[in-house]
Amino acid sequence: MKTMGIVSLCLVNPKRFPDAEADARASGAADVLHHARVCSSLSEALQGTVYALAVSARRRELGYASADARSAAQALVAAARQGEVAIVFGTEMSGLTNEEILQCRAVAHIPADPAYSSLNLAAAVQVMAYEARMAALGARSPALAEADLARHQDVENFYVHLEQSLLASGFLDPANPKRLLPRLRRLFGRAGLEQEEVNILRGMLNSFRK
Amino acid sequence: MKTMGIVSLCLVNPKRFPDAEADARASGAADVLHHARVCSSLSEALQGTVYALAVSARRRELGYASADARSAAQALVAAARQGEVAIVFGTEMSGLTNEEILQCRAVAHIPADPAYSSLNLAAAVQVMAYEARMAALGARSPALAEADLARHQDVENFYVHLEQSLLASGFLDPANPKRLLPRLRRLFGRAGLEQEEVNILRGMLNSFRK
Repeated sequence: MKTMGIVSLCLVNPKRFPDAEADARASGAADVLHHARVCSSLSEALQGTVYALAVSARRRELGYASADARSAAQALVAAARQGEVAIVFGTEMSGLTNEEILQCRAVAHIPADPAYSSLNLAAAVQVMAYEARMAALGARSPALAEADLARHQDVENFYVHLEQSLLASGFLDPANPKRLLPRLRRLFGRAGLEQEEVNILRGMLNSFRK
Repeated sequence: MKTMGIVSLCLVNPKRFPDAEADARASGAADVLHHARVCSSLSEALQGTVYALAVSARRRELGYASADARSAAQALVAAARQGEVAIVFGTEMSGLTNEEILQCRAVAHIPADPAYSSLNLAAAVQVMAYEARMAALGARSPALAEADLARHQDVENFYVHLEQSLLASGFLDPANPKRLLPRLRRLFGRAGLEQEEVNILRGMLNSFRK
């Protein structure tokens, strides 16, 4: 990541940290490790970000059609004009959980050969970091939301509000939730909510409640 | 390289080959190693190729203005229509010699951060192989939602339903509508609603109404 100009690392529940082997392997990038932030949950790690991109080995995640690494990096860099953004990787062995992916705004897929698609974590980080750098260096940028993107925590609070409203109205049956909330996260995640839109949606929910 | 669909490996004067440690590290790609060709010189390795691309950490090589990895990969893939092509990497420690670079048709440079530009060999191979694969796949458009997009009229009916609900709840004041409905259209328009999502949203509105 440091070779690509990315120096802000956050580790969620690392098994061992600090770790002598990690230090030794970091070579000239030990400063990135030493300044790494350690969080106890992905949600904590994403506090204050305006956009999070999940990287997955699978082409489809929970019905998200994942974008390829290149276009996902371009969207990420466009969002970075509004505030802090994150690229989210899972563990070497099992990747990201569904719950983790649902906290992100978009899913990226590295189009490896289907016959042997198992990039290791370091390789996936290298490719995504490279694409983020290329997108940042490039002049191209996809259509950018002109307004302020909502912060991660405000979006999460909206989802809590939405869930409570749907429980109260009876539309969400806690005994049989099906895939209602993930589907709604997917819809609003795709849109990329702006701050003012979150306010409007929550105002709507309050008005329905009354 | 195998993750990116490249399986033809040629080693020039390897220190140890075959090698148990290399086999162990190759994981599911041991077949690439086992079929590797061993040559005594780069010249021998390039026999029969129509185009060779040297990868260098330096921006300029012997007066070549090196291309960035992306455009170099596109030129490589274009040449591959004419015959076998090669991507040439140097050793981990010292890279390619001038003599080796001069045997290649072009030089590629991975635009790492000048403040810390030392990609290791594995990382450089991963990035170049990825760019070669992306070039070979062609400029494919980002993934589209594969689910059924809602029909225009169904989306319009949802907006009517939404407006009625907001009037009933009092959130929309017909005497002073401001830009509420246009804003909501913009939000859902950006998302690109699917048919099933329209059904879910209308079900939610009905539940709130009750």
